[in-house]
Amino acid sequence: MTRVAIQGATGYTALELMRILLRHPEVQITAITSRSETGHVTSVHPSLAERLDLSFENLSAEQLGDRADVCFCCLPHVASMESVPQLLAAGMKVIDLSADYRLNDPGVYEQWYGHVHTDPTRLGSTVYGLPELFGDRIPGEELIANPGCYTSASILALAPLVMNAWVSPKGIIIDAKSGVSGAGRSPKTNLLYCECNENISAYGVGTHRHQPEIEQVLSKISDASVDVIFTPHLTPMDRGILATIYAYPNGKASDEKWLTCMRHFYSDKPFVRVVEHLPKTKDVAYTNYCDITVRVVKDRVIVLAALDNLIKGAAGVAVQNFNLMCGYPEARALIV
Amino acid sequence: MTRVAIQGATGYTALELMRILLRHPEVQITAITSRSETGHVTSVHPSLAERLDLSFENLSAEQLGDRADVCFCCLPHVASMESVPQLLAAGMKVIDLSADYRLNDPGVYEQWYGHVHTDPTRLGSTVYGLPELFGDRIPGEELIANPGCYTSASILALAPLVMNAWVSPKGIIIDAKSGVSGAGRSPKTNLLYCECNENISAYGVGTHRHQPEIEQVLSKISDASVDVIFTPHLTPMDRGILATIYAYPNGKASDEKWLTCMRHFYSDKPFVRVVEHLPKTKDVAYTNYCDITVRVVKDRVIVLAALDNLIKGAAGVAVQNFNLMCGYPEARALIV
Amino acid sequence: MTRVAIQGATGYTALELMRILLRHPEVQITAITSRSETGHVTSVHPSLAERLDLSFENLSAEQLGDRADVCFCCLPHVASMESVPQLLAAGMKVIDLSADYRLNDPGVYEQWYGHVHTDPTRLGSTVYGLPELFGDRIPGEELIANPGCYTSASILALAPLVMNAWVSPKGIIIDAKSGVSGAGRSPKTNLLYCECNENISAYGVGTHRHQPEIEQVLSKISDASVDVIFTPHLTPMDRGILATIYAYPNGKASDEKWLTCMRHFYSDKPFVRVVEHLPKTKDVAYTNYCDITVRVVKDRVIVLAALDNLIKGAAGVAVQNFNLMCGYPEARALIV
Amino acid sequence: MTRVAIQGATGYTALELMRILLRHPEVQITAITSRSETGHVTSVHPSLAERLDLSFENLSAEQLGDRADVCFCCLPHVASMESVPQLLAAGMKVIDLSADYRLNDPGVYEQWYGHVHTDPTRLGSTVYGLPELFGDRIPGEELIANPGCYTSASILALAPLVMNAWVSPKGIIIDAKSGVSGAGRSPKTNLLYCECNENISAYGVGTHRHQPEIEQVLSKISDASVDVIFTPHLTPMDRGILATIYAYPNGKASDEKWLTCMRHFYSDKPFVRVVEHLPKTKDVAYTNYCDITVRVVKDRVIVLAALDNLIKGAAGVAVQNFNLMCGYPEARALIV
Repeated sequence: MTRVAIQGATGYTALELMRILLRHPEVQITAITSRSETGHVTSVHPSLAERLDLSFENLSAEQLGDRADVCFCCLPHVASMESVPQLLAAGMKVIDLSADYRLNDPGVYEQWYGHVHTDPTRLGSTVYGLPELFGDRIPGEELIANPGCYTSASILALAPLVMNAWVSPKGIIIDAKSGVSGAGRSPKTNLLYCECNENISAYGVGTHRHQPEIEQVLSKISDASVDVIFTPHLTPMDRGILATIYAYPNGKASDEKWLTCMRHFYSDKPFVRVVEHLPKTKDVAYTNYCDITVRVVKDRVIVLAALDNLIKGAAGVAVQNFNLMCGYPEARALIV
Repeated sequence: MTRVAIQGATGYTALELMRILLRHPEVQITAITSRSETGHVTSVHPSLAERLDLSFENLSAEQLGDRADVCFCCLPHVASMESVPQLLAAGMKVIDLSADYRLNDPGVYEQWYGHVHTDPTRLGSTVYGLPELFGDRIPGEELIANPGCYTSASILALAPLVMNAWVSPKGIIIDAKSGVSGAGRSPKTNLLYCECNENISAYGVGTHRHQPEIEQVLSKISDASVDVIFTPHLTPMDRGILATIYAYPNGKASDEKWLTCMRHFYSDKPFVRVVEHLPKTKDVAYTNYCDITVRVVKDRVIVLAALDNLIKGAAGVAVQNFNLMCGYPEARALIV
Repeated sequence: MTRVAIQGATGYTALELMRILLRHPEVQITAITSRSETGHVTSVHPSLAERLDLSFENLSAEQLGDRADVCFCCLPHVASMESVPQLLAAGMKVIDLSADYRLNDPGVYEQWYGHVHTDPTRLGSTVYGLPELFGDRIPGEELIANPGCYTSASILALAPLVMNAWVSPKGIIIDAKSGVSGAGRSPKTNLLYCECNENISAYGVGTHRHQPEIEQVLSKISDASVDVIFTPHLTPMDRGILATIYAYPNGKASDEKWLTCMRHFYSDKPFVRVVEHLPKTKDVAYTNYCDITVRVVKDRVIVLAALDNLIKGAAGVAVQNFNLMCGYPEARALIV
Repeated sequence: MTRVAIQGATGYTALELMRILLRHPEVQITAITSRSETGHVTSVHPSLAERLDLSFENLSAEQLGDRADVCFCCLPHVASMESVPQLLAAGMKVIDLSADYRLNDPGVYEQWYGHVHTDPTRLGSTVYGLPELFGDRIPGEELIANPGCYTSASILALAPLVMNAWVSPKGIIIDAKSGVSGAGRSPKTNLLYCECNENISAYGVGTHRHQPEIEQVLSKISDASVDVIFTPHLTPMDRGILATIYAYPNGKASDEKWLTCMRHFYSDKPFVRVVEHLPKTKDVAYTNYCDITVRVVKDRVIVLAALDNLIKGAAGVAVQNFNLMCGYPEARALIV
C-alpha cells in the first residue's frame, strides 16, 4: 500500500487523478492540498460524494512528507519548481504534472515560460514521463516530469517515424484540436461556456509552449534536429485531443505498410492502439488509450492520434508513471 | 433618425442590441459605454468588425445626453438605479434592461435584491415593458422597465389564462430551462464551459428573483393574487428559454379549445406564435418570437413557451419597446 | 465465473454494459448478438478495440444457452417478449432491459405500447429490478425486468415520500430532462446532431410510457393510488437525467428534516446519495449513483434527482441486478 | 420584384436561403419543392411559422418556370444535373447549390463523383459563383455554380497568395474543421447527436471532393498547377468552418506585411474581413462574412479563415450571386 498526496487538488486533472487512484488497490489517498480552499473535497468536487472523505488542507512539504510516500504535484508552473525540491527533501517521490521539469535546457525554459528556472540541475536530469518511450528509465526515479497533453499525442504519433527516419525531421506540421478542459479551471472570460460553445479557433499559433517540448523529445529519440510547426485549436467539447500531423516520408509505402510498422513499434505497449479507421476523440474519452492511424496522401504521410487530454494526456499517464516508479503493474487502475 | 446610446455595452445582451439596432433604418448608435473597457468595440465584440466603428467610453449621463436621444441601460441592478435618474435628467428616454424598475413595491425590491431602492417613486410608476400586455401605455413614456427573460416567457404563457380566469391563480408551477447566456458574461467558475457543458441542474430553487416579478405582473392583470413556484434550470446551450408550466384549469376544455383561446388573445401580436406542436427553443433562436402551445393532461393544463432569452427575453423586446416609445412600427428591425 | 451473453448489442446501453462487464472479475462475455451486424464488435463500437475480441452473431436462444449462463436482453420492446421465453427455456437467467416485463397488467401494456402481450403470465410475476426497493426479491430470480431510466430517477426520488405518506399521492408533477442517448441509436431525423444541439423541448407530454410504470411501482409500494403527470424533455447533452418533482407534503417540515428522512431511508443503499446541494447530471455521469435532494418551497416539496440514464438508468442497474441474481456483491464492478 | 423558387427545400441550406430571401425587399418566394414532403413548410421548418405560407410541392421544371424567374436548386449532386437543363429550358435563371457544375472537366467530375456527367458542355462553361473572384462575370449569366463551403473558405484564404505568387503552389496543406450542418440533414447514424457530440475526427482524408475543386479554382486564377492536401474534420457544433492553411512563402515578410497585402486585395469586397486576431467561427456565425488572418511561423505562412458554412458557405453566397445575376446590390439582404 502506497500513501499518496495530491498537491493542488482543485482542478480537473486532480479530479481525474483522484478518480483513478480511488480504484487503485495499492493506493491510499492521504492528503489533498489547496491554497484557497479549506472545505471538504466535495465542496469543490461534488462527484466524489461518498467516495473520498478528505478536506483540502494548506500543508507544507514537510507535513506532506509525514503523510504520504508519493506526491502528485498539480500546481501551475513556477509554483511547481518551488515546491518540488521541498517535496523531494521531505522524502517523497514526486510526479510533477506541471511543465517545470519537462524541458532539459534552462535557457529554453526561460525563453518559453518567461521565468528563470530556480532548479536548473534537476531540470536537465529529470526523466520525461512518457512510458511508451522512457518506461525503462522510470522505475526507481524520485521525480518524473509528466508530459503535456498535446505533446503526448504528438510524440506518440511521430516517435516511430522519426526514430526510424521514416520521415524527414523537417517540415512537420502538427494541427491539434483540444477540448476545453485542457485550458484548466480558472474563471477566465475566454473559457466561459458562451465563448467556447459553437466555436472553434486556433490559439497560440507559433507560440504554444508544447512546441519546444515536442521538438526536444523527438530530437532526442531520433538523433536529428526535429522541427515542427504546432497549431493548437480550442474545440467545443469537454475533453479529447486530436492531432493531425503532416510529414514528408523518406521513401514510398502504402497505408498498410505504415500501419504494420506502427503496430510493430507499439506491440508491447498496452495503451497505444494502432487502428485502421480514423481515430475519434470520443472513442478514447475517459480512457488511458491513445488511438493512432496513418494515411498516405500525395507526397505526404498523415498521422492522426487521439487521446483524452485529462487521462492519457495528464492524470492517466501520471498513474502509469506512478505504477512504474513504485513497481506496480503498468496498467493497474488504468483499464476500466 | 434617433440617436441611441448603450450604457454598459460589453455583455451579451448589449451585443444583440447593437446587432438589431445596426439594421434599424431610423437608428444611429452614437455612444457605447463601459467602466472597464476603453478600446474599439471589436476588441470585445469581434463579430462587429466593419459593422460599428465606435470605441467604449466612460461617459457621464450629461455627456450621453449630448450624444443621444435614447439610452439603453445595460448596467447591473443597483448600478442601474443610480444611473437612470441621471440619464432622464439629461433629457434622454431610457429603456432599463436591469431589474431595478420592474417591481412596483420598494419593500419587495429590498427583500429580493438585498438593497434599499434609491429611486422608489419611479419604481412604482414605471411601465413594465412587455408590449403584448402593456403596449398601449408605452408610447410617450420616458422610462421603460424591460422585463426579465424568464418572466417574459412565463407571463406570455400564462397571461391569457389568468386574465380570463381560465386557470386557478394558485398552485401554478413554472419549470423553466435556460441557456447559459442568461447568466451573463462575468468570469465565474460555475459558468465555465466545462462546468456547464454536458450538465443540467436546477438553481435558485424557491429563491430566484424572477418569481416575484412574475407574480406581480400576473396578479395585476388578473385582479387575483397569483401564486407561482418558479424553478429555473441551467441548460447546456447558448440561448433559449423553455418554460413548462402546470396550472389547474377552471373547467374542462380540449387542447384545441385552449389553442383557439390563446390564438384569439394574441391574434394581433406579431411576436407571439401560438403553435400546435411542442415548441423548441431552436425554432425561436435568434428571433423575437415566443412560441406557445397548450396541452391538457389529466386534471392539469400544461402551457409550454419558448423564446430566445437574449432577443425576445432582452434585446429584442427592448427594441420593441423603443419602437413603441419613439413612434416607429413595433416590429421594425425585429423580423429577419 | 459467470458466462454472459448480450442480445442486441449494437446500441448505447449494450456498449455501457460491455464496458462494465469487462471490469467485472467474475464475468466472461461469451456472445454478442445482432440481427443486422456481423462484423467484429469494434466495427460498431471502436472504443472497445483491444478490450473485447468478439464478433456480432445472429444466434438462436438455444445457441446462446450453450454459450452463456446469463443473458442481458437489449432488444426493443415486443422483440423482447418474443425472445425472453426462449432464453429462459434455454436455461439462462435473463435481465430484460426492454419495457416488456415492467408493467404487471397486460391491459395496461397493450394500452400504452399498442401490442397484445404474448407472455402475460410472466408479465404479472416478474420482479421489477430496482434493487433499492426490491433488492431482497431479486436473488434467485430467473428473469428481472430492468427499469426505465426516467422511472428509476422518479421512483428513487419519490419512494420514501409516498411509502411513508409524507406527501399526497395525488397531484405529483415530474418534470424530467434527459440527454439524447436515452432516445437510442436509430438513425432518425429528430435525433440528428443539428436537431438536438442548442435546443431543448418537451416531448410525449401526457403520453410517455414511463408514466404508467412510475405510477404502478409507486402505488404498489405505498398502498395508495399514486397519480403523476410526467413531462420528459430532450436536453442537448449525451447522457444524464434530472427529475424535478413537485408534490404536496402532508404536514410541514424543514429542508433539513426532509433530508434526514431521505438519508435514513437510503442509509444502506450504496448507489443513492442524498446530498444537500442541488444535484447536477454531470456529477453522476459515467457512474451508477443517483443524487437526490429536497427543498420546501411555499406549500410544496420539491425533490430533485440526477442519474446517468445509460448507467444507473440502464446498464449499471442491470449489472446491479445481475450481481444480486448471481450472488455477487451488489456493487461489484459498479464503483470506479 | 423577382419571383424565386427553391427546388429541394427540406434541408438546412434551403432553410437559410428562405430566411435570407424573406428579408430581401425585391424577392417573392413563389414555390418550394420536395419529392418526399407535401405539407406546409412549417411541418419541416417550424421556425418559419407566420413567416412563409407555402407548402412543399412536387413540381416539374415547366411548372416552376411558370411560377418563378429564378430557381435555387438545392438538390443533391447527380439529381441536380438532371434538373438544371430543364430549369434553364423553362426560362429560369438558375443558381445550383450542388457540386454538379463546379468542376470544369467531365473526366475529373467522373473520377471524384463516380458518375458520368450528362451535361458536359455546360460543365465547362458555367461560372463558378465565388463573387470575390468572379463577380464581374456573374451579371447576365443564366447558370451559376454555387461553390462548396470548404472551398470558399480555402480559396478566399489562398487566392491573394497564389494569384500573386506570394506562396509556392506546391505543398499547401488545408486542415479544415466544419460544424455538423455541413453534412446535411439525412438520417445517418454517424450524424446522430450522440455520435458527433463531444467528438472530433477527420474524415475523407485525401478523398474529399472539395480538394479538386480548390485545386481547379486556385490553378485557374494563378496560372500555376496548385496542389493541396485537404483534410476535413467533423467538429461538435452546428455551423462554422475554420480552415488552417500552411503554405511555403516565396520570400520573407512580416505578419503585418501579409495582412496589408490581404487587406489591399479584399479592399472593395464587402464580405471578406481581414482581421488581426485569430478568427473564430462564432464571430461569423449567422453572417455572410469570411474572417481571415495571416501568421508567419518559422518558414511557413499560416492563413486562417472562418465562415458560416450555411451562409457564406452556401445560402448567403447564393443570394450574393443572385443579387449580381439580377442586378441588385451585391450585399442586399445579406448584412443583418
